[in-house]
Amino acid sequence: MKFLKVCSILAACMLASVSVFAQEALNYKISGGSPIVNPDSSVTFSIKAPHAGKVMVNGVGEPLEMTKDSAGVWSVTTSPLRPDLYTYSFEVDGVRTLDPANIYTARDIAALSSLVIVPGGNADLYAVHDVAHGNVSKVWYESPALGMQRRMTVYTPAGYDPAGERRYPVLYLLHGMGGDENAWSELGRAVMILDNMIAEGKVEPMIVVMPNGNGNLAAAPGETGRGMYTPKGEDSVAEYGKFEKSFPEIVDYVDTHYLTITDKSGRAIAGLSMGGGHSWRISLWNPDMFDYVGLFSAAVRWNGSGVSADDEGLSEALRHQFAASPALYWIAIGDEDFLYDLNKDYRDMLDGLGLSYEYHESAGGHTWTNWRDYLTLFLPSLFRK
Amino acid sequence: MKFLKVCSILAACMLASVSVFAQEALNYKISGGSPIVNPDSSVTFSIKAPHAGKVMVNGVGEPLEMTKDSAGVWSVTTSPLRPDLYTYSFEVDGVRTLDPANIYTARDIAALSSLVIVPGGNADLYAVHDVAHGNVSKVWYESPALGMQRRMTVYTPAGYDPAGERRYPVLYLLHGMGGDENAWSELGRAVMILDNMIAEGKVEPMIVVMPNGNGNLAAAPGETGRGMYTPKGEDSVAEYGKFEKSFPEIVDYVDTHYLTITDKSGRAIAGLSMGGGHSWRISLWNPDMFDYVGLFSAAVRWNGSGVSADDEGLSEALRHQFAASPALYWIAIGDEDFLYDLNKDYRDMLDGLGLSYEYHESAGGHTWTNWRDYLTLFLPSLFRK
Repeated sequence: MKFLKVCSILAACMLASVSVFAQEALNYKISGGSPIVNPDSSVTFSIKAPHAGKVMVNGVGEPLEMTKDSAGVWSVTTSPLRPDLYTYSFEVDGVRTLDPANIYTARDIAALSSLVIVPGGNADLYAVHDVAHGNVSKVWYESPALGMQRRMTVYTPAGYDPAGERRYPVLYLLHGMGGDENAWSELGRAVMILDNMIAEGKVEPMIVVMPNGNGNLAAAPGETGRGMYTPKGEDSVAEYGKFEKSFPEIVDYVDTHYLTITDKSGRAIAGLSMGGGHSWRISLWNPDMFDYVGLFSAAVRWNGSGVSADDEGLSEALRHQFAASPALYWIAIGDEDFLYDLNKDYRDMLDGLGLSYEYHESAGGHTWTNWRDYLTLFLPSLFRK
Repeated sequence: MKFLKVCSILAACMLASVSVFAQEALNYKISGGSPIVNPDSSVTFSIKAPHAGKVMVNGVGEPLEMTKDSAGVWSVTTSPLRPDLYTYSFEVDGVRTLDPANIYTARDIAALSSLVIVPGGNADLYAVHDVAHGNVSKVWYESPALGMQRRMTVYTPAGYDPAGERRYPVLYLLHGMGGDENAWSELGRAVMILDNMIAEGKVEPMIVVMPNGNGNLAAAPGETGRGMYTPKGEDSVAEYGKFEKSFPEIVDYVDTHYLTITDKSGRAIAGLSMGGGHSWRISLWNPDMFDYVGLFSAAVRWNGSGVSADDEGLSEALRHQFAASPALYWIAIGDEDFLYDLNKDYRDMLDGLGLSYEYHESAGGHTWTNWRDYLTLFLPSLFRK
């Protein structure tokens, strides 16, 4: 009898408990929630804010003003959007807020935003599908060169068996200024892109190593003894070449701890913006290390205070690198990127030296939209030589 | 000459770019940011909302009303708080929002909250310190029993070397209703607790496996082909015993893929709430699998629709389990927990059967504050027999 009484109490409490947990978020949802991606690729955003005077949504094209219904719910529907992953936020009477009905967020330096995917085209590669998934690990390695234990993200493809025989090629994938070892796997959707493109047979199964490229830092914000501080873009700025010089110890660590192909035919390096500059310099300094180089909106030739001049022996170094015949040297940039001219000058230099590379010019600027796209274009060429 | 021009443009653009990135968040910060933990363990929260009429902070004791200064910044300072990790949110004219100046958040089912740690006592175990860190992996395993690929979180302690000889004991650590394979490593701060207590020599280095305990689900929200849906607590509810029956395949996977101690002396299982019920039943059904059992605010004897009656052969099964002499059978609950009476009845039953266990009763209810605390109390006893 006692058990039956407890039983009914427990059932009631468990249900009550579920409601209590869920209530907070549900209060802010209208039927269908926010965001809703409509069949025509427009997106409807909504937020309950009965006392607000003005509510905007920012991040999907131009800022959009929302309108209030009689229940105090503000909403707006965009025009049809290009398939992509969008980051957005609301502004309620001037206060920036996430979409309270959307649990999916990502951080770019010190700002969190809500996420929505408009499907179709490449954006389908950014969504999770029910394909075989690779594993993602946050791995600490000892860095004698930088004098600290440091953190990196490692993707191993579906089927990778540490106790097996099969060896895999490795892509080293580097973030930009203000980013960290989480950037490519979160905002960059690299894990989804790899899972999906490998499952489609378009990309060779590979290990992808995403280190922290900030030479003064050990790990992403909140992952070190510095605590829960507010990051700044400037955190990325380290003594010129510090991270790049330390890079071979990352390759050593990976070759020691994973089943890798341990010569250049099985290694690629790519990065965006500052990480493109890193990839540029690391591949230049280690011409026998990588067969594939990807420079995405790259800060090529940037040495911390200016652009490397040719009198630093650059032409000779480039000739030396290209004499080792990289399988692919791939440069991509948007026609509105603030680094466009820098890249143009660099391509002119390569052309002048008679060194061959592949070039992809896209629309747009210095954006994750472009970097995700470049990754989907770069990956299929890797390790197919 | 051209390079010098590009150089100065680049420098200007990079600086401009940093400011643009950072500006959004900085707009909402007052000097020192929010939250600020004061020396007396009070916390000052603030948010700029010049047009708001009422701003509250929820989550640190009773809701607190904030006051506005002449710059439109609302703030409030709490009374001194007990050391702990707190989850909080703001309410601006009735709209729930995160603290825009705080990038540190955690999700509980469908609600995101901001995080702050008030240091001291156990809370120092919840913070990241500069100690040797273990690695954390999101691992997909094949589940023939549940008919899907499923995701779990695996912690390997600092020094774990997959190519080495040393074998480690394993704690299986299970989440509650509405949770998933991320719950213990995020809200539960299990990774920090393990890193810190192992570094202090108080806890044996161990592998910790945190599976997804929802028998109908493969992975946390957003990690499957179901897309970026809004989770509900009810997502956890699966056919009675479904997950528990499948559990041995997780142990098989872990013993096959990690350097484990493969007998009961090297295995522990613990869980909170629903996961406590899982731990209770899995250890009951597999009396030779675990030497250590932890039931944290556990839904013991809950069978999906009621409480298992003794006429289901429970006494006999318990006698059989305890005949195998578990090294530790540990029950913990808060004196205000809604499962208190259920646990009391269960302890009475064990007492009546003459089966010995350890019992810890804390203040408070069905909370992460208690579950984190229970983990710090449970861990030091493990694998010391």
